[in-house]
Amino acid sequence: MTTRKIIMDCDPGHDDAIAIILAAAQPELDILAITTVSGNAEIEKTTDNALKICDLVSLTDVIVSKGASEPLVRLRETAPGIHGDSGLDGPELPAPSRSWSEEHGADTIIRLVKESHEPVTILPTGPLTNVALALTKAPEIKENIEEIVLMGGGTFGNWTPSAEFNIWADPEAARKVFESGIPTVVMGLDITHQALATKEVIEQVNQIDNRVANIVGELLVFFASTYKEMFDFDGAPVHDVLTVAYLVAPELLTMKEVNIAVETKGEFTAGTTLVDLHGVTGREVNAKFGVELDVDGFWKLMIEALKKYSN
Amino acid sequence: MTTRKIIMDCDPGHDDAIAIILAAAQPELDILAITTVSGNAEIEKTTDNALKICDLVSLTDVIVSKGASEPLVRLRETAPGIHGDSGLDGPELPAPSRSWSEEHGADTIIRLVKESHEPVTILPTGPLTNVALALTKAPEIKENIEEIVLMGGGTFGNWTPSAEFNIWADPEAARKVFESGIPTVVMGLDITHQALATKEVIEQVNQIDNRVANIVGELLVFFASTYKEMFDFDGAPVHDVLTVAYLVAPELLTMKEVNIAVETKGEFTAGTTLVDLHGVTGREVNAKFGVELDVDGFWKLMIEALKKYSN
Amino acid sequence: MTTRKIIMDCDPGHDDAIAIILAAAQPELDILAITTVSGNAEIEKTTDNALKICDLVSLTDVIVSKGASEPLVRLRETAPGIHGDSGLDGPELPAPSRSWSEEHGADTIIRLVKESHEPVTILPTGPLTNVALALTKAPEIKENIEEIVLMGGGTFGNWTPSAEFNIWADPEAARKVFESGIPTVVMGLDITHQALATKEVIEQVNQIDNRVANIVGELLVFFASTYKEMFDFDGAPVHDVLTVAYLVAPELLTMKEVNIAVETKGEFTAGTTLVDLHGVTGREVNAKFGVELDVDGFWKLMIEALKKYSN
Amino acid sequence: MTTRKIIMDCDPGHDDAIAIILAAAQPELDILAITTVSGNAEIEKTTDNALKICDLVSLTDVIVSKGASEPLVRLRETAPGIHGDSGLDGPELPAPSRSWSEEHGADTIIRLVKESHEPVTILPTGPLTNVALALTKAPEIKENIEEIVLMGGGTFGNWTPSAEFNIWADPEAARKVFESGIPTVVMGLDITHQALATKEVIEQVNQIDNRVANIVGELLVFFASTYKEMFDFDGAPVHDVLTVAYLVAPELLTMKEVNIAVETKGEFTAGTTLVDLHGVTGREVNAKFGVELDVDGFWKLMIEALKKYSN
Repeated sequence: MTTRKIIMDCDPGHDDAIAIILAAAQPELDILAITTVSGNAEIEKTTDNALKICDLVSLTDVIVSKGASEPLVRLRETAPGIHGDSGLDGPELPAPSRSWSEEHGADTIIRLVKESHEPVTILPTGPLTNVALALTKAPEIKENIEEIVLMGGGTFGNWTPSAEFNIWADPEAARKVFESGIPTVVMGLDITHQALATKEVIEQVNQIDNRVANIVGELLVFFASTYKEMFDFDGAPVHDVLTVAYLVAPELLTMKEVNIAVETKGEFTAGTTLVDLHGVTGREVNAKFGVELDVDGFWKLMIEALKKYSN
Repeated sequence: MTTRKIIMDCDPGHDDAIAIILAAAQPELDILAITTVSGNAEIEKTTDNALKICDLVSLTDVIVSKGASEPLVRLRETAPGIHGDSGLDGPELPAPSRSWSEEHGADTIIRLVKESHEPVTILPTGPLTNVALALTKAPEIKENIEEIVLMGGGTFGNWTPSAEFNIWADPEAARKVFESGIPTVVMGLDITHQALATKEVIEQVNQIDNRVANIVGELLVFFASTYKEMFDFDGAPVHDVLTVAYLVAPELLTMKEVNIAVETKGEFTAGTTLVDLHGVTGREVNAKFGVELDVDGFWKLMIEALKKYSN
Repeated sequence: MTTRKIIMDCDPGHDDAIAIILAAAQPELDILAITTVSGNAEIEKTTDNALKICDLVSLTDVIVSKGASEPLVRLRETAPGIHGDSGLDGPELPAPSRSWSEEHGADTIIRLVKESHEPVTILPTGPLTNVALALTKAPEIKENIEEIVLMGGGTFGNWTPSAEFNIWADPEAARKVFESGIPTVVMGLDITHQALATKEVIEQVNQIDNRVANIVGELLVFFASTYKEMFDFDGAPVHDVLTVAYLVAPELLTMKEVNIAVETKGEFTAGTTLVDLHGVTGREVNAKFGVELDVDGFWKLMIEALKKYSN
Repeated sequence: MTTRKIIMDCDPGHDDAIAIILAAAQPELDILAITTVSGNAEIEKTTDNALKICDLVSLTDVIVSKGASEPLVRLRETAPGIHGDSGLDGPELPAPSRSWSEEHGADTIIRLVKESHEPVTILPTGPLTNVALALTKAPEIKENIEEIVLMGGGTFGNWTPSAEFNIWADPEAARKVFESGIPTVVMGLDITHQALATKEVIEQVNQIDNRVANIVGELLVFFASTYKEMFDFDGAPVHDVLTVAYLVAPELLTMKEVNIAVETKGEFTAGTTLVDLHGVTGREVNAKFGVELDVDGFWKLMIEALKKYSN
């Protein structure tokens, strides 16, 4: 089986955590590293959360590198209203069995992309600070990056009326990525809001009798409660998980080739992604954008993955 | 019967024309004036079109004032791809029976609002240049404006990925209006895209045997053809008509009180309306925003109105 | 003698007042109107001040039209720290002998430019709101405007570190003017800061034995006191007066042809004029910009003018 | 003698080169590293130039680390019109005797600041990309940075009408530095344009009989020729050298405590520094800004330094 080499650049985060759990269950994915970034919570918390999830799914030999604690230019803002104070509220997880690497997340990305004999795919599911730092420090790595499959943006917003949190949190970094020329695949709110963990989904998860599934169930319950309160959603959208789904079951996602520009200058619109679905701007295609999800197929993929875990 | 005094500030335009036709059929609306603005087409064309529609529906004693030929600050851009070169392509309409007033549209607004013993409602269905000019020249008219019921904006865009045409065409004017403190009601793309003149609708219109309905049918056919080509829509959304529907059948529209800010500064986002549906910005409510339309009720209202015409 | 027809669009304001006084003494200038704008003080005050100065110099048959009370788009801000609460603190001037015209300042500009058989020159010495309103309402007047000779902008700022007050107070209006294509002459801070009313100048003024000169002396003393306090200047720069000097003694001013762009979008820089003295931008020349003043010649012109007054 | 530990972060560049030459002659300065950045020329050129100058002044044991080849967010632009194609046109200098370090410039800054027992002063004389990268990757280094003494900005511009080249080339990086809270000293165009290498200065340099002085003479001749052509200056301003002068002879420079903000969003003004000389903004002091130079004293310092070289 050919495997695909990936680096997961994340800020766990409930959906980041579930994305790792889904990825770890896929034999065709070779997780080279998990790099963390400040986003859903402060960097120490997101890094600790990444380590805890690695313990949970036995990814104990994958390097976990702490990355950027603040955006490229702007002040840091986190999302405790969505993910709780720890960034991963809900389940009780034991303290991590190891510490993070001494190497900065951006440097891990640079080193592994350079060292790899095959092109590497990066899956950013938090603000794009680490990727932008890596591209600024070592633009030559572009040539060995197969794809950047990221969660972020959309034709509408959540953190502001027009901006999604990950892009809003570091718009300059996002701009750097979208203008990099690297093949970019975008899971924006348009498709991630289709991946709603409803009561029915949570029930299915809870019927699986292993610790990983139990934890996922608890994550989904907490996540659903904040989405209910803040956005009146019936279930939480597991945004980040779609990046992994795209790699292992691309037939579940309808994608559209579009231009995406990132606003960095507006008075009210910083972090807005301009997704040119109808080709009205005349700007060149630079991304594949998720427009429709096979919802049943997606949850089936997730449930099957959870069933594989034995502990 | 109490009547409501209205000024229709428009850039006909297919849906502007239909809005006038719907309004003219309502005994409870007292149309004080039709003022025109450059938008869907150049000012001479939109004014001529307004005069032609007045002839069609016998509004021959309503003043038609030509307003702004260009935006407050930016360069003019029109929308021939949507409305054809004349701004009202499709039906053959006779040349207008009269000329426009010598008075500038913005001055007509100022004068009529000042003269009226009862508060006046303004229905802008084009760029907001005339209203902004009136407010800048005579801010004291605010006190005798009951409501501004406008078509514009939304949580997504049509002319750019994030901006709707009317707001995009003169963002500074729009900002002036939204910051004026006048009660403002907004028919954005979220609700106007629900008012789709489908084949079934057009058939219903065509079964009405009078000249006005025939013209409306021809307008809808042309309008649907450009929406099909440009946005792949199955029917044209008759955006502007909702402003009139709101006045005469408010029960058909579900509105939400929100803050709306207008971006005037972005690199890619000028003219974007930030509609704070979930209260994430902390900014104060300054508008009622249309979120859901009783589609059947709306078309019933339209069909009934068309049936009233005898010629 | 051929006379030059001018409209003075101003917000008196100490230096606006002195500009009117200088202009009224010039037989070759035919003052068609004085139009006022909110700027140094609120519109009622600047209009009253204009009327008072007209009384002082017997311009009692020149129409004085009250113009815009607020900027095109932004909120109004005035400059009481510089011009006192009245906008013209210092001398005691009697209440005006007449009221302002019913016509709006912008409409006066439009009407007079259209009516005039010869091209008209406009001298804006306040925010450019009236001129922008006139150009938006009646773009066709461009063809009968000979020149716009304005005070505003510069390569550095006074009201903010990079912006001069007049341009800062209504950047969108300024942009409209600079992009209008009308020949534009700019007295920016670079040259107006050379026109410093020092102690020696004030002494010369005070030696003239007529009421007009006495008033000018008192204006200069007050104006110098606020410039001392706010900017630590030894004397007040009589900015606006240079627009009149340019018309009657152009040999006193060294001008440079440049491109001037107006920033309307920055976070800190709205109202900044980009004066391209060294041709680094590649943008086309659209203005003559004052770079050097024959200071002695300028004050001689002023003193001679003041001596002509008999009352 | 107490020495001051410095890192020179530069893009040689004629004036950068002379700054190194002046610094190398000062026993009280301990040059920990020279880190390079793309700016006056591409990164390989500026790094080679730094190595050549190190050879010239026997700084062969100082680490030279190649830093950022492009700005944080924007596209790279260089200044061949000012510094020639090599970035250091004029004298013939032998190829460097060694190569640059493997370590990235930003990482060298981080490492040396962390390792140093005494606080380190950074002297950036190019775009601030490396410093911003270091602060983003390792914000904790702020505590061991004594001062950042940089060349950049001013109350007027050179590369655009309002922006100086170094700040313009990476405004986001500059913003990061000015908002870092680190004590910052700024040599802007206001003071660097006083440090003009006139014909008389060049003659003095040429009378010194050593190779270093000869090279400096040739650098100044070339630099003066481009400044003559582009800005019509009588001599080249040796901008960057003032950062070193500030450290060794602060009595030569009159400084003012001000707030400096960096515009990153304007349409025409990106990279403009808002230097609040008159306290009009109400923003807090965050920098010392050079306002006046003892010109004779400065050149005396330079000449004395050049005389110390024997080869």
